[in-house]
Amino acid sequence: MTQLKYNTEALRKKDKDHFIHPFTDFSTFNKEGSLVMADSEDIYVRDSDGKKYIDGIGGLWCVNVDYGRKEIAQAMADQALELCFYTPFGHVTTPPAAELAAKLAELAPDTLNHVFYGCGGSVANDTAVRIAHFYFNQLGKTSKKKIISRIDGYHGSTYMTMSITGVKFDHIGFDQHEDLVHNISCPNPYRRPEGMSTEAFCDHLVQELEDKILELGPDNVALFFAEPILGAGGVIVPPQGYHKRTLDVCRKYDVLYVSDEVVTAFGRLGHFFASEDEFGIVPDMITCAKGLTSGYAALGATILSDKIYDVISVPQAEGSLFTHGFTYSGHPVSCAAALKNIEILEKESICQHAKNAGDYFEEELKSLASLPIIGDVRGKRFMICLESVANKETKELFPPKAAVGDRISKRCQKRGLIVRPLAHMNVLSPPLTMSKTQIDVLVSILRESIIETTHDLKEEGYL
Amino acid sequence: MTQLKYNTEALRKKDKDHFIHPFTDFSTFNKEGSLVMADSEDIYVRDSDGKKYIDGIGGLWCVNVDYGRKEIAQAMADQALELCFYTPFGHVTTPPAAELAAKLAELAPDTLNHVFYGCGGSVANDTAVRIAHFYFNQLGKTSKKKIISRIDGYHGSTYMTMSITGVKFDHIGFDQHEDLVHNISCPNPYRRPEGMSTEAFCDHLVQELEDKILELGPDNVALFFAEPILGAGGVIVPPQGYHKRTLDVCRKYDVLYVSDEVVTAFGRLGHFFASEDEFGIVPDMITCAKGLTSGYAALGATILSDKIYDVISVPQAEGSLFTHGFTYSGHPVSCAAALKNIEILEKESICQHAKNAGDYFEEELKSLASLPIIGDVRGKRFMICLESVANKETKELFPPKAAVGDRISKRCQKRGLIVRPLAHMNVLSPPLTMSKTQIDVLVSILRESIIETTHDLKEEGYL
Repeated sequence: MTQLKYNTEALRKKDKDHFIHPFTDFSTFNKEGSLVMADSEDIYVRDSDGKKYIDGIGGLWCVNVDYGRKEIAQAMADQALELCFYTPFGHVTTPPAAELAAKLAELAPDTLNHVFYGCGGSVANDTAVRIAHFYFNQLGKTSKKKIISRIDGYHGSTYMTMSITGVKFDHIGFDQHEDLVHNISCPNPYRRPEGMSTEAFCDHLVQELEDKILELGPDNVALFFAEPILGAGGVIVPPQGYHKRTLDVCRKYDVLYVSDEVVTAFGRLGHFFASEDEFGIVPDMITCAKGLTSGYAALGATILSDKIYDVISVPQAEGSLFTHGFTYSGHPVSCAAALKNIEILEKESICQHAKNAGDYFEEELKSLASLPIIGDVRGKRFMICLESVANKETKELFPPKAAVGDRISKRCQKRGLIVRPLAHMNVLSPPLTMSKTQIDVLVSILRESIIETTHDLKEEGYL
Repeated sequence: MTQLKYNTEALRKKDKDHFIHPFTDFSTFNKEGSLVMADSEDIYVRDSDGKKYIDGIGGLWCVNVDYGRKEIAQAMADQALELCFYTPFGHVTTPPAAELAAKLAELAPDTLNHVFYGCGGSVANDTAVRIAHFYFNQLGKTSKKKIISRIDGYHGSTYMTMSITGVKFDHIGFDQHEDLVHNISCPNPYRRPEGMSTEAFCDHLVQELEDKILELGPDNVALFFAEPILGAGGVIVPPQGYHKRTLDVCRKYDVLYVSDEVVTAFGRLGHFFASEDEFGIVPDMITCAKGLTSGYAALGATILSDKIYDVISVPQAEGSLFTHGFTYSGHPVSCAAALKNIEILEKESICQHAKNAGDYFEEELKSLASLPIIGDVRGKRFMICLESVANKETKELFPPKAAVGDRISKRCQKRGLIVRPLAHMNVLSPPLTMSKTQIDVLVSILRESIIETTHDLKEEGYL
């Protein structure tokens, strides 16, 4: 880390006066302002006053290889100098965009061989919708347009992808596509109906998808959107068999299955892509972003099967073009960052490390489930969520004003660990290079912070 | 430029097999494949076989300072090493994101002081819609949702922004929001009704906007989207007075005016922003991207007025967050690139150069209007379009199969100049640092290419 050089107060003022943050809490922002994160190294970040933290959230589920990688910074600078940008429109390419497309086709399952680039997960999912509609139009199935997604699924923040997002809290105050998107239940085993086995819960969920398709009419349904593990909705791992069986239902009714791997790809679960390697399915499209560059550059991708490509790569009318795309589709500097990131993941066997160390991370965090307010610890390897409850028997939550997730995160932050609060939950998604010793430190800070929070909640009469 | 080192055929194969390009012509792509652009320097690019071209299109309206800027590459590498990424969600910032937001507020007109970041123009415009809807919901004006845009306006390629885009050709085969978006006429003086003066045409356009608002009902209209000069629709400069008068109409009916400056900002017309400095208006929002980083990194911004910010920066419900945003909102490496780019624009007085050299560029290109197939040369400074016609009297076009735009571009390319074809038009938007000598070379290549094309068209009986 270099010598700190930041004027925290000046930066905080500029930030407060001019930077509109995603997901701001405007009830407190003007009073509190922002923490200025300024520096980094390995799995650590440091604020502008020099305080060091373990980055328990990997930037925002994205810094998969760790911070301060000279090779990636150098690859980006070299590309910026050689050719910072060139249009991807029409029949023009650049070496990094072509190389990365071929590499992604090699890494993605089976026949998923065709890459449409954007700059992040939202655009990757928005593109999946536009392409699916175009695909069915090409086939003459012009009524197949509706989208099914799950309650608590998170798919982005464009107008379309926020409509597909099933986190109802995120819709408050904004508008959505009411007609086009339909939700089914969140496949959360912890919150399954009382007295129902996990197996019966899975049967119920699969049936619900089929019923929804039949209710809307198979001729009207284009797409099913599903994260293999739901991320921002609280790291929900669907029951065993769910992925395969929901895919079968989609196939039965000619509904395209989009596996949203924005969080799960590039090592977080121990594989380049989790759909097939972890959950045994080959979807029609995979969307990805985040870990694709380990967050070093803005990049996303929608990866399509041969089946879809063969249909869309035919002119829709005489003289027509495939009129979809972005200036920064296949940005050479972003693609150079991704290529170097993937090279590091391969060279250092980081997926294998994420399996070993990730299993340890998961196991150690799951041991926190014995604490009195921790109702559920769920997730897989380097993608974990802790759900706090007021009563472990009834799974009853604390009232929102207890702000239990926030309290735990603040306690952790004080001790030098960043953990993301999500209502009554806390989410962890650290860089994948963590050692077992570093994991021990993280878990110990988290444990102490939960214990202290429990004490406070008792003091204040919440327990 | 470094020694060329590319295996063109291998890259072309990877590209063809795996990279789905924006706006592909699939009637020829599989046979032709892509040109591989590999290297660059100053205002020049070089393909993977070593052929050098003047980049007449500035990447894609975006490389405003020229190629190969060591300072920008270095700033990006330094930031990637220091802190490649940190979450902008909630109350966390990074120095480059805070600094850039303050700088944009300083450069943008008047009370446009609040910056929401995305990764490109499409997302900047998509964000403008989500925020406008949220804004009117906050005010209790929950029916104010409809959007008015112009035929031939281009606003992006998300599901929402392609719906707002009024280039009808771009809609073929895809779906749009039919209900939400309404178009009015393109303000193209060259194609105004025969016998109508430009002044009367302007009156007509302004009246049409007012009539459309009244037809939809002012209580139902949220937004008017307008590029100060329409870009991808063919570089249309609206008649004198149009900007101010359409803004007045919007103000009269409480309709927010979004000035889409994705192409026009950061020097292309000789100003950081063109809305006020060139056209005398202060809109409610300005969206920008492209020239913001001169294309070195993916970044876009939606800049809001105090009036809008004051309304949206209040919680919409108890416990609610401002639930809009992207992982890469305010990406530190992209913001560092933008800060360095703006520093170069200021230090080297590139806006002033773009006024002087841009006026010369415009004047020299306008001299091509004397050629027999050039019906109109329009635009301003470094944003120019040539429209070819079969008959200059009647303004009749060549049939589409004559592919006149394409022919001219191919002739130019052979001679070492990249010019963008758009149907029967050719568009120019080179880096802003061009010297008069370089402009002379560009214009001379273009003139020869048009003359040669004219000859071919005669030979083939099109003339």
